[in-house]
Amino acid sequence: MIIVMEPKATESQIQAVVSYLETNGFKAVLNRGDIMTVIAAIGDRKLFQPNAVASYEGVREVKLISEPYKLASREGQPDDTVIEFENGVKIGGKNRPQMMVGPCCVEKELDGLLRVADAAKECGCNFLRGGAFKPRTSPYDFQGYEEKGLEYLKIASERTGMLVVTEVMDTLDLPLICEYADILQIGARNMQNFKLLKAAGQTGKPVMIKNGPAATIREFLLAAEYILSTGNPKVILCERGVKGFDSTYTRNTLDVAAIPVIKRYSHLPVIIDPSHGTGRRYLVEPLAKAGLVVGANGVMMEVHHDPDRASSDGAQSLTIEQFKQTMKRLNHLMDIMEEESI
Amino acid sequence: MIIVMEPKATESQIQAVVSYLETNGFKAVLNRGDIMTVIAAIGDRKLFQPNAVASYEGVREVKLISEPYKLASREGQPDDTVIEFENGVKIGGKNRPQMMVGPCCVEKELDGLLRVADAAKECGCNFLRGGAFKPRTSPYDFQGYEEKGLEYLKIASERTGMLVVTEVMDTLDLPLICEYADILQIGARNMQNFKLLKAAGQTGKPVMIKNGPAATIREFLLAAEYILSTGNPKVILCERGVKGFDSTYTRNTLDVAAIPVIKRYSHLPVIIDPSHGTGRRYLVEPLAKAGLVVGANGVMMEVHHDPDRASSDGAQSLTIEQFKQTMKRLNHLMDIMEEESI
Amino acid sequence: MIIVMEPKATESQIQAVVSYLETNGFKAVLNRGDIMTVIAAIGDRKLFQPNAVASYEGVREVKLISEPYKLASREGQPDDTVIEFENGVKIGGKNRPQMMVGPCCVEKELDGLLRVADAAKECGCNFLRGGAFKPRTSPYDFQGYEEKGLEYLKIASERTGMLVVTEVMDTLDLPLICEYADILQIGARNMQNFKLLKAAGQTGKPVMIKNGPAATIREFLLAAEYILSTGNPKVILCERGVKGFDSTYTRNTLDVAAIPVIKRYSHLPVIIDPSHGTGRRYLVEPLAKAGLVVGANGVMMEVHHDPDRASSDGAQSLTIEQFKQTMKRLNHLMDIMEEESI
Amino acid sequence: MIIVMEPKATESQIQAVVSYLETNGFKAVLNRGDIMTVIAAIGDRKLFQPNAVASYEGVREVKLISEPYKLASREGQPDDTVIEFENGVKIGGKNRPQMMVGPCCVEKELDGLLRVADAAKECGCNFLRGGAFKPRTSPYDFQGYEEKGLEYLKIASERTGMLVVTEVMDTLDLPLICEYADILQIGARNMQNFKLLKAAGQTGKPVMIKNGPAATIREFLLAAEYILSTGNPKVILCERGVKGFDSTYTRNTLDVAAIPVIKRYSHLPVIIDPSHGTGRRYLVEPLAKAGLVVGANGVMMEVHHDPDRASSDGAQSLTIEQFKQTMKRLNHLMDIMEEESI
Repeated sequence: MIIVMEPKATESQIQAVVSYLETNGFKAVLNRGDIMTVIAAIGDRKLFQPNAVASYEGVREVKLISEPYKLASREGQPDDTVIEFENGVKIGGKNRPQMMVGPCCVEKELDGLLRVADAAKECGCNFLRGGAFKPRTSPYDFQGYEEKGLEYLKIASERTGMLVVTEVMDTLDLPLICEYADILQIGARNMQNFKLLKAAGQTGKPVMIKNGPAATIREFLLAAEYILSTGNPKVILCERGVKGFDSTYTRNTLDVAAIPVIKRYSHLPVIIDPSHGTGRRYLVEPLAKAGLVVGANGVMMEVHHDPDRASSDGAQSLTIEQFKQTMKRLNHLMDIMEEESI
Repeated sequence: MIIVMEPKATESQIQAVVSYLETNGFKAVLNRGDIMTVIAAIGDRKLFQPNAVASYEGVREVKLISEPYKLASREGQPDDTVIEFENGVKIGGKNRPQMMVGPCCVEKELDGLLRVADAAKECGCNFLRGGAFKPRTSPYDFQGYEEKGLEYLKIASERTGMLVVTEVMDTLDLPLICEYADILQIGARNMQNFKLLKAAGQTGKPVMIKNGPAATIREFLLAAEYILSTGNPKVILCERGVKGFDSTYTRNTLDVAAIPVIKRYSHLPVIIDPSHGTGRRYLVEPLAKAGLVVGANGVMMEVHHDPDRASSDGAQSLTIEQFKQTMKRLNHLMDIMEEESI
Repeated sequence: MIIVMEPKATESQIQAVVSYLETNGFKAVLNRGDIMTVIAAIGDRKLFQPNAVASYEGVREVKLISEPYKLASREGQPDDTVIEFENGVKIGGKNRPQMMVGPCCVEKELDGLLRVADAAKECGCNFLRGGAFKPRTSPYDFQGYEEKGLEYLKIASERTGMLVVTEVMDTLDLPLICEYADILQIGARNMQNFKLLKAAGQTGKPVMIKNGPAATIREFLLAAEYILSTGNPKVILCERGVKGFDSTYTRNTLDVAAIPVIKRYSHLPVIIDPSHGTGRRYLVEPLAKAGLVVGANGVMMEVHHDPDRASSDGAQSLTIEQFKQTMKRLNHLMDIMEEESI
Repeated sequence: MIIVMEPKATESQIQAVVSYLETNGFKAVLNRGDIMTVIAAIGDRKLFQPNAVASYEGVREVKLISEPYKLASREGQPDDTVIEFENGVKIGGKNRPQMMVGPCCVEKELDGLLRVADAAKECGCNFLRGGAFKPRTSPYDFQGYEEKGLEYLKIASERTGMLVVTEVMDTLDLPLICEYADILQIGARNMQNFKLLKAAGQTGKPVMIKNGPAATIREFLLAAEYILSTGNPKVILCERGVKGFDSTYTRNTLDVAAIPVIKRYSHLPVIIDPSHGTGRRYLVEPLAKAGLVVGANGVMMEVHHDPDRASSDGAQSLTIEQFKQTMKRLNHLMDIMEEESI
């Protein structure tokens, strides 16, 4: 960490900072320039309280150098994390990207879900997604079928052999959801629900976190760090867009560049969600491709047997037919990417 | 709700929308223009699924007209909500704005908290704030003293007669925190933790919600609606700034205009938090004044007996002496505002 | 346009709006609902003053329906605009995407520029870009070699047969720059410099506009409309990223989805600039690919013979060697995309 | 400037950076830590090319310490800039805040403007504002009466003795506008039209710049620096709001905290524009008060004799009667602020 003193800082102000740092276990290295003094604090980032230092008299700015995440960082672990499931399916690293496919929300009729699952299986997808507990902006919107929804996911999973990804919204629901889910999803609005992150980590299950609508990449990786710090290494990140100033044509601004950025700074698998990330059906396929060519380890897509009558997010869901056409082209793109380096 | 059809929409596409609306209990009124047809859907907003309609062929845009919040809306309740506590203290409406004062985080030593509480009481403040459970971006940052912190708040409260405001981060902690708190605070990062909102509402305690860092005012009022819809009318909103693109000089962008906007559309009390909203000590007093002159029902301020050694957010906390000077001027401003209309 | 009246609007308030509309040449169609009245104004969008209507008593909201751009709109012109240059090079439509390549800023030594141009030509690129007039945030940063820079571009262009793209910052400079440029570039910071847009349009030269750092897509298309409305149809749009709240890892947030969105609503060619859009060399190639797979008509890339010593934006420029490797893969991707539909 | 090297940077990479710095006239001070080396570059910020350094191998991050603006900085000039006009009116420092009042756009009829000017004069306002050249997002919106508008402003100015503030959009228009204007306004969309900034500075007239919709405070002060660097010290800054993600209830997010922030880092006068900053008539008065209590040196307000028929921005303009009521309360607030410290 670097502490930049004001040009007019007095010697006693400088010494006060040095003394604070040394008391707290840091080595303070002074850099006296013609204009100002800069102090480098060498030591354990975890013990450093930037705000405490910033409030000393004569301090102009405190700059962090090393990233505050350790376990999520590629410096600590140069090799890609690969998560392997009991059925041999793997996500992360150089493995072929995984598709997570299904309706935004599991509906009252089982049949529609089974039709989606059958189509997904047929197209080679290994993960079935579907919300049983749904976070909704308005209390009057449909909140999900809860346990009934989980049971349906189980039926579809047993029928097709697909793995289940579903969202958990509250620590109280964890034991129930763990009976059904292969991956616990933490939604964007809970990215900084730290109690939930820790509790989900402690289950030992793979956890997929979506970035919050105004989360920085650093905050996103720190959310992952909450899970990793419970001793659970199975964390997947999902880019689902951030809030922009233009919501006329898309629901969110999908930050495609975040994928190669995260892959540079972290070893964790990253997938892309063009359905929530754009909110528009016609944008799902192009943005899925964009995610794949920049290195995403997977794509999450909403597919519904009858999107016009979906209880949530119909406008961004593909029909089964559109999905099959899309998968044909995505599979082809993945084939090419496997064979040669494009 | 207004459904705008594409200029080239066919009659059968128009009829499909009409039929969808009528099946779902709406009256559909057609407006056939020279260029395009516009359909007004009259009925219960709560039953309306904009996305379902948007995905019909030939639909160009779906526009909501009435606000989706009902209980939080001033249309439904023209008179200001005033929350009265057992000791007669009131917040909301034309009552003198209330000050919520204390350290960001309750510390290990009781003494500092008591000194802050004594000073706050002396300056006429009725609410003592302090975090016992702390949401922190990094898992390595201090997470709060939990129950011990709550006990300290109780001691300070009994000594001074001040009411306690403290944050709840998880449904599991609610029973414990309810024993100690007079107002349950929901932090910005949990603004859309809907399970927590409902559970907090069900306790019957006053609940104060802070706006999420990327929350729109509509989303903020819908979060309040979650609590109100449990039958608990005691909701306070707290404007604490939003994430902007410029974080060099302030931590957040405090949206001062949000206060008169919310007061126009809702009857709920709104307070301002210039400490988190700016993250800079020197900005707390000017922004507190700004909040008061635009009509805030209260101000939340961080005060610490020794901010340079605070375990969190020291850089934005006032010292006890700075706080007393600030309160002198804020009390004077509130006196003037009570006497005359400025 | 739709005017939504307040539920409590009186008949005379409604009539005042109707009368205003009719006086201004619109047909007003009333839609009297159980809750509120909605008025559709049918007529020429160009004559409509939404703010004037919004300020009438009893008006709740004014909603625009048709897009305010006409000439830029795909409704008005369903076929893609293709711009053909004298040497037969074409940009837009189904033509192979065009690469615009060169240093951010033309430097003092001609030799470096020629080396870049030679490499670009060798890789099949048809456009040479380079700044002679440079907009710089600080007045103390290097502002470009102006006419000398233009001359160098000309030399490199004559040597290689490449077309020249260069930025114009002021109406006064237009005559000079027109002598040298094949495409006039309007930079992001001048996207709403309306005098410059019109003057550039009036030259009859192809004009490429970059989106402003906080421009909505609608504002972007309206900037294009300024040029088109001078009678000049040769407009190219360039997506170069918007300002986000996270500038730690990238300089801007490149809005990849904007490309298919713009192509849906407009017939104009759209290119992507991953160099400015990310500000990081290692992100240029992946984001160029992302742009291509979502349908961009071209890619603008900064290449410098010695980026470490570049007078501006070195950190985002590719070396000549990196550029050649990148082009090998981009050309391969474009080959595949031409042969088959991926 | 601080250059932070990667933990794994080699000695030769470190020496390459040192050598670059020394070649460019900087003193390089090395700070070799246990984990990484940090190099402080002491010298003239104006000569420093952060991007050039960032692209050296082994460089992790380049951090600027001193602010890149010099002339605008309070460090260079501790005393407030006060601009005095020929008639003795002063803006800046401890002088009573100045009101800049008038229609968004000068209209065809002189009479309305005169009525506004008379009312403004009567309320003690010294500046008449009005647009003769209007930047409009759409080419189909009214663009101003140009020279005719300037003449009307002159007539109103001569009648009332008020000073004229009007916008300049292009360098070509400067000579004409200088004949009529006492303050040249540079609009938000031209904040980074650097040619215009310099040309306006060179006229020697006072120049008022509005912040761009996505400008950081640093960029804003650098725009001021462009003018100051022409030798013209008469620069006024105007906070008019930034683009936020929520434009449902306000047109922009008015950053009230920017006023005390700018006043801490710069000596220049800062005024607030609650009309454009909120876009809503009912928010003008509260936000004007907020601006005053945080230290603004003035308020710009739109007033129109008949806002419902205004050719632009009617929804945010006050009627003459509303304006008079507002000024009564603002004058009272300024009286109190002069008498005592609130």
